Amino acid sequence: MRILILGGDGYLGWPTAMRFSRSGHEVTVVDNFSRRRWHLDQSTDSLTPIYTLEDRIEVWKDLTGLEITSRIGSIEDAEFLDEVVAEALPEVIVHYGEQPSAPYSMRSRQTAVETQQTNVIGTLNLLFSMQSFVPDAHLIKLGTMGEYGTPNIDIEEGYIEIEHNGRKDTLPFPKLPGSLYHCSKVHDSTNIHFATRIWGLRATDLNQGVVYGIETDETALDPRLATRFDYDETFGTVLNRFCVQAVVGHPLTVYGSGGQTRGYLNIRDTLRCVELAAENPADRGEFRVFNQFTEQFSVAELAELVKGSAAQLDMDVTIESFPNPRVELEQHYYNASNQKLLDLGLEPHYLGEELVHSVLDSVRQHRDRVVFRAITPKTQWNPGELEGGALLAPRET
Amino acid sequence: MRILILGGDGYLGWPTAMRFSRSGHEVTVVDNFSRRRWHLDQSTDSLTPIYTLEDRIEVWKDLTGLEITSRIGSIEDAEFLDEVVAEALPEVIVHYGEQPSAPYSMRSRQTAVETQQTNVIGTLNLLFSMQSFVPDAHLIKLGTMGEYGTPNIDIEEGYIEIEHNGRKDTLPFPKLPGSLYHCSKVHDSTNIHFATRIWGLRATDLNQGVVYGIETDETALDPRLATRFDYDETFGTVLNRFCVQAVVGHPLTVYGSGGQTRGYLNIRDTLRCVELAAENPADRGEFRVFNQFTEQFSVAELAELVKGSAAQLDMDVTIESFPNPRVELEQHYYNASNQKLLDLGLEPHYLGEELVHSVLDSVRQHRDRVVFRAITPKTQWNPGELEGGALLAPRET
Repeated sequence: MRILILGGDGYLGWPTAMRFSRSGHEVTVVDNFSRRRWHLDQSTDSLTPIYTLEDRIEVWKDLTGLEITSRIGSIEDAEFLDEVVAEALPEVIVHYGEQPSAPYSMRSRQTAVETQQTNVIGTLNLLFSMQSFVPDAHLIKLGTMGEYGTPNIDIEEGYIEIEHNGRKDTLPFPKLPGSLYHCSKVHDSTNIHFATRIWGLRATDLNQGVVYGIETDETALDPRLATRFDYDETFGTVLNRFCVQAVVGHPLTVYGSGGQTRGYLNIRDTLRCVELAAENPADRGEFRVFNQFTEQFSVAELAELVKGSAAQLDMDVTIESFPNPRVELEQHYYNASNQKLLDLGLEPHYLGEELVHSVLDSVRQHRDRVVFRAITPKTQWNPGELEGGALLAPRET
Repeated sequence: MRILILGGDGYLGWPTAMRFSRSGHEVTVVDNFSRRRWHLDQSTDSLTPIYTLEDRIEVWKDLTGLEITSRIGSIEDAEFLDEVVAEALPEVIVHYGEQPSAPYSMRSRQTAVETQQTNVIGTLNLLFSMQSFVPDAHLIKLGTMGEYGTPNIDIEEGYIEIEHNGRKDTLPFPKLPGSLYHCSKVHDSTNIHFATRIWGLRATDLNQGVVYGIETDETALDPRLATRFDYDETFGTVLNRFCVQAVVGHPLTVYGSGGQTRGYLNIRDTLRCVELAAENPADRGEFRVFNQFTEQFSVAELAELVKGSAAQLDMDVTIESFPNPRVELEQHYYNASNQKLLDLGLEPHYLGEELVHSVLDSVRQHRDRVVFRAITPKTQWNPGELEGGALLAPRET
């Protein structure tokens, strides 16, 4: 298949590009390097040293003989995007091309506007390019489980049947996004759903949980193919961040009581889920939603897991509760469905000490690259309110 | 009270400004004249001749001795907006400052992006200005009933209690917006709800039905105070458009079978609803949603009403079904709640022949200003699909 990967230089985008390339697909990646620029802006970097996109592509070709095509530009630039889509004529478009950090979106008005602008307008542009040039292509869009928030009922996959005053309908699952970034993903879902209904496009929204891990079959081929690994308060996801904290002797930064429960998955499973979605496309006019995670954990459970795994490697790790910079419930009901990808054949890599050990090992190799200043949370959800969360009354669980 | 009206030069904004000014409030209006510019772009205009904003304000002062302050600029310009908010220090902000047309948003990629950009980024900027300068102010935001679409269950006011797998929660009512404009209003609702939860702002979202009518107590004082009256396919709402069609002898353009049912209200009731919301502010941290309409009609019923009322004035009106340019259900269940504004004391002006006669009279005065070319629908929701609606399977009603 001809596959276009937006954000193909990123943490998930680059491994996804190699995976599809290796399994014989014709891959074009698009990136404008915003993640690299955002790191420059805050004087941080990936823990793993990463090659430039062009070098990655050359190494990939040297090792495998396979070509990956790159196009550098922003999907907010309609003319550029049209040109790329019209030339690549993709059958599948995997869309990772967004600002992916909740703290970044909450840092200032400028970053909030930038986030919603980048994500909403970029995706809207993409829908128009698809409608014009590849109306039959399958859009696989990365959403997030964070769109749902923490409702007091079970979270279904995108839709819920509601019975009300004696009538029934199946409607979009209500959303309670937890940051302006998460809001932008809800906006995207609304726009994409609309485009499927009105223009008959086909789309799969992968509401992804928090990804952890550093290695895929393809990154393991050569260190020059490594993907980025973020651990800073802005772009690092929690388990990856805890592993870095464990290695450098920083207390694990649990925000508040640590009862915040979310869905998680291994980076290897992300690739497999995207592959499963591509192999089993949505129908014309269908907006299909999969919840893409394999297990649920509370933050406190993850901290204990990292602490325990590190102890086996003779590392002495402490856990410290930080004042929660976010406004979120710290104790809540959480039970989300993730059946649809399992039904398509996903065989999860469950989280255990082995995985934590392997991440800790990788982190130790690059220990000297850790920027300490970037570890502790600085971005407050409610700058007027030092004790975040005060506005949210606890809900019955 | 100090009241800031965004979009204060518009169809509803200008009458609202006069109303609040007349009842003793300190009114500042903000506008960037985008509606006037959009009309320029398409060589159309308001049916009623309207004065410039500065002339309106002068006439108002001459007639009543009351001052209305104007600030010209765009709310997408954060610096401008901050300055206005910091200077006016409003207790109430009435936000009409958006691109309000569904067909405009569906005309092209450029107008779609412009719509979402104007509405979403403008409103996001406003939330930041409020948080910085007037965190206790009450935001009254004009939403639209079109955010809900036409679900097969009763439409509640913003939220719905859902019982699911033995648990319950009250969550945002699911939305099925019918155009990229309506999508932008859903995005706004998501962002504003977020800001109330996280920053403790207070907000009322008025999900308004289709407004009709031309006269309020204040516009009636002097023809120079007239508000705009749009009848073109882009900015005209259906009843107003039918009245113009009746006067010029054009068949009433019913899209498809005419079974599309929506909520409607008189422009006088819009002003009263906004007033009621202002007099009864939302709490800190509350995102309150009112469905703002007084009656439900199908398009076919409205056409019959206009035809019948016109007949009494010896006007011979025909009704013609046009191929529906929109993708929407033409037969569907529709039952929306509108209790909350009634509970606050709204006394509706119901739609009847008297109102239609008065609109027809006003239209006849300006009959020579009608631009015929602008009457019939040109904007297709799905340009690839001449028979709009084909993609939407009828739902059980």
